[in-house]
Amino acid sequence: MTYIKLITLLSLFILVACTPKARQEQTIQKDYTQFVKPLVGTLGEGNTYPGAQVPFGMVQLSPDTEKWEWGAASGYEYSDSTIYGFSMTHLHGTGIPDMGDILFMPTVGQTHIRPGKKDFSETGYLSKFSHENETAEIGYYSVVLDDYNIKTELTSTNRAGMMRYTFPASDSAHVVLDLSHVLRFDVVWSNVKVINETTIAGMHQVKGWAKERYVYFTAEFSRPFDETRLFSGGKEVKYDSYKTYRFRSSKEAAGPDIQFVADFRTSEDEQLSVKVGISPISTANAMKNLKTEMPDWDFEKYVSASKELWNKELAKFDVEGTQQQKETFYTAAYHAFMSPTTYFDVNRNYRGLDQNIHACNDFDNYTVFSLWDTYRATHPLFCLTQADRNANMINAMLAHYQQSPDKLLPIWSFWNNETWCMIGYHAVPVIVDAYFKGVEGVDWELAYQACVNSATHPEYDATAEYEQLGYVPYDLENESVSKTLEYAYDDYCIARFAKALGKEADYNRFAKRAMAYKNLFDKEIGWMRPKDSKGQWKADFDTHHFEHLGAFTEGTTWQYTWTVPHDVQGLVELYGSKEAMATKLDSVFAYSSGKDYKGVDDIHGRIGEYWHGNEPSHHVTHLYTYVGQPWKTQQLTRHIIDTQYGNEPGSLCGNDDCGQMSAWYIFNAMGFYPVCPGSNDYVITSPAIPSVTMTLSNGNKLVIDTENYSDDNVYIQSLKINGVEWKKCWFSFNDIKEGGHIHFVLGDVPNKEWASAEEHYPPSMSNNEL
Amino acid sequence: MTYIKLITLLSLFILVACTPKARQEQTIQKDYTQFVKPLVGTLGEGNTYPGAQVPFGMVQLSPDTEKWEWGAASGYEYSDSTIYGFSMTHLHGTGIPDMGDILFMPTVGQTHIRPGKKDFSETGYLSKFSHENETAEIGYYSVVLDDYNIKTELTSTNRAGMMRYTFPASDSAHVVLDLSHVLRFDVVWSNVKVINETTIAGMHQVKGWAKERYVYFTAEFSRPFDETRLFSGGKEVKYDSYKTYRFRSSKEAAGPDIQFVADFRTSEDEQLSVKVGISPISTANAMKNLKTEMPDWDFEKYVSASKELWNKELAKFDVEGTQQQKETFYTAAYHAFMSPTTYFDVNRNYRGLDQNIHACNDFDNYTVFSLWDTYRATHPLFCLTQADRNANMINAMLAHYQQSPDKLLPIWSFWNNETWCMIGYHAVPVIVDAYFKGVEGVDWELAYQACVNSATHPEYDATAEYEQLGYVPYDLENESVSKTLEYAYDDYCIARFAKALGKEADYNRFAKRAMAYKNLFDKEIGWMRPKDSKGQWKADFDTHHFEHLGAFTEGTTWQYTWTVPHDVQGLVELYGSKEAMATKLDSVFAYSSGKDYKGVDDIHGRIGEYWHGNEPSHHVTHLYTYVGQPWKTQQLTRHIIDTQYGNEPGSLCGNDDCGQMSAWYIFNAMGFYPVCPGSNDYVITSPAIPSVTMTLSNGNKLVIDTENYSDDNVYIQSLKINGVEWKKCWFSFNDIKEGGHIHFVLGDVPNKEWASAEEHYPPSMSNNEL
Repeated sequence: MTYIKLITLLSLFILVACTPKARQEQTIQKDYTQFVKPLVGTLGEGNTYPGAQVPFGMVQLSPDTEKWEWGAASGYEYSDSTIYGFSMTHLHGTGIPDMGDILFMPTVGQTHIRPGKKDFSETGYLSKFSHENETAEIGYYSVVLDDYNIKTELTSTNRAGMMRYTFPASDSAHVVLDLSHVLRFDVVWSNVKVINETTIAGMHQVKGWAKERYVYFTAEFSRPFDETRLFSGGKEVKYDSYKTYRFRSSKEAAGPDIQFVADFRTSEDEQLSVKVGISPISTANAMKNLKTEMPDWDFEKYVSASKELWNKELAKFDVEGTQQQKETFYTAAYHAFMSPTTYFDVNRNYRGLDQNIHACNDFDNYTVFSLWDTYRATHPLFCLTQADRNANMINAMLAHYQQSPDKLLPIWSFWNNETWCMIGYHAVPVIVDAYFKGVEGVDWELAYQACVNSATHPEYDATAEYEQLGYVPYDLENESVSKTLEYAYDDYCIARFAKALGKEADYNRFAKRAMAYKNLFDKEIGWMRPKDSKGQWKADFDTHHFEHLGAFTEGTTWQYTWTVPHDVQGLVELYGSKEAMATKLDSVFAYSSGKDYKGVDDIHGRIGEYWHGNEPSHHVTHLYTYVGQPWKTQQLTRHIIDTQYGNEPGSLCGNDDCGQMSAWYIFNAMGFYPVCPGSNDYVITSPAIPSVTMTLSNGNKLVIDTENYSDDNVYIQSLKINGVEWKKCWFSFNDIKEGGHIHFVLGDVPNKEWASAEEHYPPSMSNNEL
Repeated sequence: MTYIKLITLLSLFILVACTPKARQEQTIQKDYTQFVKPLVGTLGEGNTYPGAQVPFGMVQLSPDTEKWEWGAASGYEYSDSTIYGFSMTHLHGTGIPDMGDILFMPTVGQTHIRPGKKDFSETGYLSKFSHENETAEIGYYSVVLDDYNIKTELTSTNRAGMMRYTFPASDSAHVVLDLSHVLRFDVVWSNVKVINETTIAGMHQVKGWAKERYVYFTAEFSRPFDETRLFSGGKEVKYDSYKTYRFRSSKEAAGPDIQFVADFRTSEDEQLSVKVGISPISTANAMKNLKTEMPDWDFEKYVSASKELWNKELAKFDVEGTQQQKETFYTAAYHAFMSPTTYFDVNRNYRGLDQNIHACNDFDNYTVFSLWDTYRATHPLFCLTQADRNANMINAMLAHYQQSPDKLLPIWSFWNNETWCMIGYHAVPVIVDAYFKGVEGVDWELAYQACVNSATHPEYDATAEYEQLGYVPYDLENESVSKTLEYAYDDYCIARFAKALGKEADYNRFAKRAMAYKNLFDKEIGWMRPKDSKGQWKADFDTHHFEHLGAFTEGTTWQYTWTVPHDVQGLVELYGSKEAMATKLDSVFAYSSGKDYKGVDDIHGRIGEYWHGNEPSHHVTHLYTYVGQPWKTQQLTRHIIDTQYGNEPGSLCGNDDCGQMSAWYIFNAMGFYPVCPGSNDYVITSPAIPSVTMTLSNGNKLVIDTENYSDDNVYIQSLKINGVEWKKCWFSFNDIKEGGHIHFVLGDVPNKEWASAEEHYPPSMSNNEL
């Protein structure tokens, strides 16, 4: 190739690469970021964090006010009065704490290397703070640390964060890095080195929920240290001829309990910034990430860049409504687009499940797969608005599968770990849903094999017994009913996938397995019920007993009986009639009891035995559409949105679960919900905003608008899709994939005629070709 | 470049690259490996190991009979009766235990995952063994494990080892991998994964003498496992619905206490082999190392390959003498060419001191630098016979320097760690010695800066006070006398280096520092003596007190007073006359006392207060040549060789210290010794073998032979070098670097005329231009 040719081609490439981007940027004129309230979900069970993160960013730089409680798994709880410091990573909305890696804390006065006791800030480096001096915006967080009168501001890029501290005048100002800090769990090992007068680097290894997680960092300070000190096991690391016998460097330390302290003499209002790059691989990669993404000290530039990235994501929804509606909606979109998180360095390397360093040259790697939650609405939302990312996420899951010694798709994975948390094999519906929605860039044959292997592992959670008996027997396996039901749904997805790929034998096998739910339905009582390996129902079955000695997962049969999303008509048949099932559904929402079983206290958002605060209930309101009472769905989803979402710190009734709670909101606010991901069908409900234009992944626009929208007008009177009168209470992906127009006419009394005839019910496996 | 041109050049390259090698191979016809006795040094203080290693190999695959005692730092002690198993790495001849990584043990019968108690083999997986059923050859070791009747054979390549087990018939044969095993110290973390039916992979992290060391491995078995089991914290790792609640893979485990057990049903005399690749970086690299170096299962092939590699090294010496002399000599050569060890993977990557992964594209990286020992004779021997390797070792030290947060050359480093063990900055003499001997392939300006920085670090072991006061004061710093003397010698090397590079100011600075020894010589008592920072001698100075409250390093002033190798004539002047110093030297060798001070009990090889078992004495016998009594040197070195070296397990009187004891032997057996590395001078003594031809690094041959060699004829009568009558008791590197002929005439009475005139004394800094 000649030099001239190369230059010509290069110019062409730049032209091609840059032009569409420039055009795209021109089209985004509105500022949607103003509507995002990062504090939503920080009070109570939401388990969100208020700090800075770019969309799907590896860094979640946020204050930690809590370290031990499961109830504040994100590290931040709005009702707390003290802050430990600011750490680089957090989990969004999970029920189990972990992360909180690489914690920095600016202080003045006496040097503390221990945090001290929460709420008693004089006992350590932690500090009191007040929400009056706290600001949480998209891409920006600030707070005044009252004990030290230090304002701290945070922002981030994908793999790096910047902290800007405004100090008072002090001859003993410090920045403490506590590598022993992590949320709830244990630091197995850590190290830190002082690289030069402004730079440190190190790592810690955490034995946490993820059993073996490595986080490396490189941090640059905006001015040279006056002094540095290292501590190990509470003692300063320095050479003392008699105590340490031989030389010991004061520039490096390693062990399970390591702190670094940078000392400064500061003038009044002196600003000192720290930039931190992180990496799952090495300090060298952390430095590469930092140098690439955050080359200079312009804090505002990175705040603006973060807002700009977010605005592109938020602009996928152009909502009309009240301020409260917009704040609720865009905050939900913000929460839905935080996880899974980027998991590769700028050189495209990442630490795999096998602990080896891999290159993701052909895809963008992601991690934090809370699949038991996110298969329901989060990934279906990605299918509509983040198809490319969803393909990357699936490729990340396939890489995990290939690196897994058990050749299993992820169950609940983050960083280079499988936690085996929750049940089922719900990477399957994510994959199958994407396949049927035409997501591109995945090796579907590999994906198919991964699905089949994951469903048929000889040791995984009694899937062998399940296939043999047609159900998981409670005497041999924990969570037997929940597993049976969720396996059957996942198997429906595999059956559908098999058929599409022409694998007839597999289709028959998994289609049969998909009917397993029938084997645990006790017609006598009208509930799913544990059965033992001899085929006997469990005696003394208390339907309200939480988890019932392990037969149910985070629930009771009142929630779980409805876990047949792929064959609701089959369930109707088990009940004998649509009326019988509707009555049973009514009883769920009507149930009232003063009594709480042990363990259930952290699940809120309850309407009777419908528990919106946890995922098994998430599709239950929509089942009324399968029994000819769609108006009940409409009333309930509007009611849930009115009562259990909002724009306040306490607005989330349950764990946001890596965006699932928020994705539920987004779908239902727009007037439809994917009851059965893996099918292409969406059940229609009453929108909770007057109007929204959603830009699909392919760039086409789906306009959803309403007539007579009001708080009371929760019932659909009529509906048009693309100008055609629409009598079905569902539509297909194919109806909207090129964009279009959904027009709702609403009113304050149910139109019981609309979509209540059987031919208008959503499809089910039993009455439809797959 | 055209294709044809490329092919032509490539052919030329192959021709050039291959022809000399083929020629070289043809010239090696003798089998020198038969004379190597790997068990030498395994009884008592030698701290050698009998297992398989190629020259300077990363893998040292050897049985561990001891785990805790400092006195068996190599893991093997000949007097032990039980074996723990076979581990992949060992330190050669050190005084501190570490390594013993990745221990495999074949067993039959009841499964033990704990080793049990040494000498009580029924308490765990360890087994009794007998030396009658033990064979240790170069590149090959075998032993029968009496408890199990399993013969185990070992061999190795550079980065991989193979174990061949011959089992009895058993329905419960096992191979246990105990990742919690390491010599003396703690496993911080480990993991293992079952990759497929014949392969496992994992790692452990050791907090040992090296504070943060990572060893990864991949192991392949020659037949599929019948079953595999993993244990963590003493419990089997497997899914149990009720005990573990959620699925847990039985194919992977992680934690500080992990074992893997492979179960087999074996037939009588069934051979089962395990190949293990190791890496400091990853299991993927360990696999690459294994696949590259040990692609098949031909055990004998790798034994032969190892012997061939060793024969090439041993063939650098063609010795004539008795069987005992040959075994002693070639075993010493074997021991001298084990360390430093290869420290990079086949893809040229290694884990650096900064924990980052580096590529050594321009040099071969080495580790295990026991520099306080090896600067004396080991590296000087490398200058003669391993110049390229020595250049690589220096480049490895320079990489360490660049990765060091303190910008210090290695002190006592191994793998990716600096241990700060011992004193001085003795990378300096290694570098300077190589520079003056014309070793090529080093950035000497960088090396020079590294030397200066290492000598002038503001915090390192009181070098600042040393420069200011002219000595290290005992009230401020531990080991003050030893440090002063060793710094002064190292500074002589820097001064000489500075002068050669034209750095006049530095030359003056370090030449002055090189005279610091004078400040601690107490003329009143004729000994080096601790002095405080006010210039006062230490009162109550007991010259025989071991380490004297920390003023001396592993010795007393009786050994340390002579640590002025660069300026022996300056020391003579301090004594007032050569006769006075000779008398003092005589008193050292003549001293007799029944009393042992605490701490000194592990240093053997004593002749009075000359302690051959430790390095500070190693040049002391040679100092008689500087006072006109070279016959005493001749008698003493022959005496030491006769009494403190040999071909038996107990033949080494002290730690072999990464080859220093052995290198001392080789030089003195050949009739010369580098009293002052960094100068080019060798002091002549009486050879301890009749004849040897040494092939120098440049391929030239130095023939050393004798007339009238006998056990009693220990005195040099006359000497010719290259045919010229030689009256000096020293010669220069320049006299032999092109090869040549040294011809000794020996007799049983001293020729007191030979080399006893002052003009024939070896040069010293005080009476010579640098």
